[in-house]
Amino acid sequence: MRMYDLIMKKRNGGVLTDLEIEEMITGYVKGDVADYQMSAMLMAIWFKGMTDHETTQLTLVMARSGDMIDLSAIEGKKVDKHSTGGVGDKTTLIVGPIVAACGGRVAKMSGRGLGHTGGTVDKLESIPGFRTVLDRKEFFDTVNKCGISLIGQSGNLAPADKKLYALRDVTATVDSIPLIASSIMSKKLAAGSDCILLDVKTGSGAFMKTLEDSLRLAQTMAAIGEGAGRRTVALITDMDTPLGNAIGNSLEVMESMDVLKGKGPADLTEVSLQLAANMLCLVGKGTPEECRRMAEKSIEDGSAFETFCAMVRAQGGDDSVLRDYSRFPRAPFHKDILAEQDGYIVKMNAEACGIASVILGAGRATKESGIDFSAGILMKKKYSDAVKKGDVLATLYTSKEDSLKEAERMYRDALTIGKDAPKDKPLVYARVEKDKVERY
Amino acid sequence: MRMYDLIMKKRNGGVLTDLEIEEMITGYVKGDVADYQMSAMLMAIWFKGMTDHETTQLTLVMARSGDMIDLSAIEGKKVDKHSTGGVGDKTTLIVGPIVAACGGRVAKMSGRGLGHTGGTVDKLESIPGFRTVLDRKEFFDTVNKCGISLIGQSGNLAPADKKLYALRDVTATVDSIPLIASSIMSKKLAAGSDCILLDVKTGSGAFMKTLEDSLRLAQTMAAIGEGAGRRTVALITDMDTPLGNAIGNSLEVMESMDVLKGKGPADLTEVSLQLAANMLCLVGKGTPEECRRMAEKSIEDGSAFETFCAMVRAQGGDDSVLRDYSRFPRAPFHKDILAEQDGYIVKMNAEACGIASVILGAGRATKESGIDFSAGILMKKKYSDAVKKGDVLATLYTSKEDSLKEAERMYRDALTIGKDAPKDKPLVYARVEKDKVERY
Repeated sequence: MRMYDLIMKKRNGGVLTDLEIEEMITGYVKGDVADYQMSAMLMAIWFKGMTDHETTQLTLVMARSGDMIDLSAIEGKKVDKHSTGGVGDKTTLIVGPIVAACGGRVAKMSGRGLGHTGGTVDKLESIPGFRTVLDRKEFFDTVNKCGISLIGQSGNLAPADKKLYALRDVTATVDSIPLIASSIMSKKLAAGSDCILLDVKTGSGAFMKTLEDSLRLAQTMAAIGEGAGRRTVALITDMDTPLGNAIGNSLEVMESMDVLKGKGPADLTEVSLQLAANMLCLVGKGTPEECRRMAEKSIEDGSAFETFCAMVRAQGGDDSVLRDYSRFPRAPFHKDILAEQDGYIVKMNAEACGIASVILGAGRATKESGIDFSAGILMKKKYSDAVKKGDVLATLYTSKEDSLKEAERMYRDALTIGKDAPKDKPLVYARVEKDKVERY
Repeated sequence: MRMYDLIMKKRNGGVLTDLEIEEMITGYVKGDVADYQMSAMLMAIWFKGMTDHETTQLTLVMARSGDMIDLSAIEGKKVDKHSTGGVGDKTTLIVGPIVAACGGRVAKMSGRGLGHTGGTVDKLESIPGFRTVLDRKEFFDTVNKCGISLIGQSGNLAPADKKLYALRDVTATVDSIPLIASSIMSKKLAAGSDCILLDVKTGSGAFMKTLEDSLRLAQTMAAIGEGAGRRTVALITDMDTPLGNAIGNSLEVMESMDVLKGKGPADLTEVSLQLAANMLCLVGKGTPEECRRMAEKSIEDGSAFETFCAMVRAQGGDDSVLRDYSRFPRAPFHKDILAEQDGYIVKMNAEACGIASVILGAGRATKESGIDFSAGILMKKKYSDAVKKGDVLATLYTSKEDSLKEAERMYRDALTIGKDAPKDKPLVYARVEKDKVERY
């Protein structure tokens, strides 16, 4: 293989063979292929794309570049979930225990937040004592005992992806569907679950801003998963508006527990139930209707909540905070944002809401930054709600009093208040399997 | 400037500003811009192109990245010439002395051959004693005395081009018109002549295989030259068939001298006269007709030949070989290639003819390879000639007897013999100025 010839081939619209992709990626990881050649290749892929077969092969080779986790020590079918990232997206904390309570097995590694979106690991760490770093045995034991364990990424998972992502990040080649899909799926394949549910966000707060792009990404990932022998389904869900009412780490944990207790916000509850039902279907727990009913029941009978509490205890956390939220550390400063006019919220820029929460301390500006677990935003009025002058639109929480002003300005700018009620938007746009798109 | 933003801008079809181009190139030369970012940018340019204004700015910044040669110590208007490279293209050895004999000034740096095309410096070095390395003063003195000096590239000319070209060469981004044009023109601008004549080759032996690509390249280079304040004209000339009958270093010197003595092959003589006439027009020696007549006269009266001999002597060469070719070292082995059938030569693959000459030792396989000055090919039958079985098609010359077989096979494969005479092809397809294309 001469890398030059492969760049030329892709640049001219050709299709790389399995062997070419394998030699290119293993060569890159070993350092035999130079960064400057790989970045030219990435740009050629950005322009010319990849077939589903090429993308699947790329993903497999990336997955195999490091540890392939063997989950066979865990009994039953394991189902993973991945969200492409959004603001207020805390569904892992909800759907994980629901699925586990209904007999599915969730052995899941999650990431930290970066930029305007939060990360599951940060949210979990806001629970006092909770450990997101477990060794392999503890991880498996927790899943076998509680049905679920949520930990941070550990081991040498898809190092090819790590190296490629770092290069894409500095060469303007991140936003390419085959490259995004292979990056996500290589880690999911390496993580070892039998089935994968993908939550592809769409809208202003999502990486994919349009429904069409979200559908293409979902279809590409579903094709990769199935091509690699894993049952894979994707839901396209709304991220034009933040999900639920809470943004920020402990605030989102509390809201998630509200959902598990049957008193969470309607939008978050509905999206979570649909995700959980699809995960249960994937592991063969019944028809879609049966799985939906099962998920609802796990909330009604408290089994999902108790499953989460059991996992928290098993991982060293203090689950009393989940029963009595006043035991969570509280942010020393807060501020209500009041409506300055009557009307309806006709638009919320979810990305800007996320940035406001980062300003308050809830997220990281850089990978090295620390996080204020208590900081964040509680939204009181959301998309399509009627507001009257003086109503509380949202409450900001922070440990840095001087951040309130900038965060308020950012949050206000994120809202558009109009005269007429806007039309309703769906929470879930579509369900995608390899060769099937069901639009709702 | 963030290089990331510039890559993104170009990738999305944007136009880089003068400042952005300057900071990008100077940053790259200094090492502040990484190779992997520049290669992504080059690939984005390959796909999205550049405007004439962007290309001109890129060229100027590349030219100014090293020495800008000041030719003001040479009296009169200096005219440079550049050929995009071809097989049997020895026109510099002919047009240089013609122009000098007619009062133009030619202070020219030339390159060595690589791949299937020869280089002027190699051809000159086949003249015993000829020095292609002169210091600045000797170079200027020779032009002031003889009207012409031909030397190899010296000094730190357009180092940005050197660095960029090395990167393009390994990232499949060579064949981009703005990148080719800026690479050529940056060196021409740095070399300091007032006027530039470009000989853009087109056809099977040329870098540009189609007339349309050749015209685009010519127009882009003419726009750059004029944009930088240099009078620039391009001729599009045929390189579907090798030019003249000789391929190889001393063989091409002898043929060039034949032209200067008025007894050269018709195709080479005609192309040389048109190039020389255009160069004389550029330096203001008269109307196109007057310049053509002047050029013809310099051959008839022997002044062009004597000018070349004077330059050879001034640069340490033995000009007696130019009067008596038997004094050139001779290749120890030669072989006639005989026609195996009657017919007409309906096609010659010029690139394959060039490769055959490299096999014989006339060119370099790599930059480091040596050259056999006496090796090469004398073509006896060319495009459209009638041949009879047993006719000599060409004679091969070499110092490596065992190369004859492979070179013969390659040369035979380069020829297509058909039943009917093919139609004539023009030698010169078009004359291009900045905003004007004159097709012949």
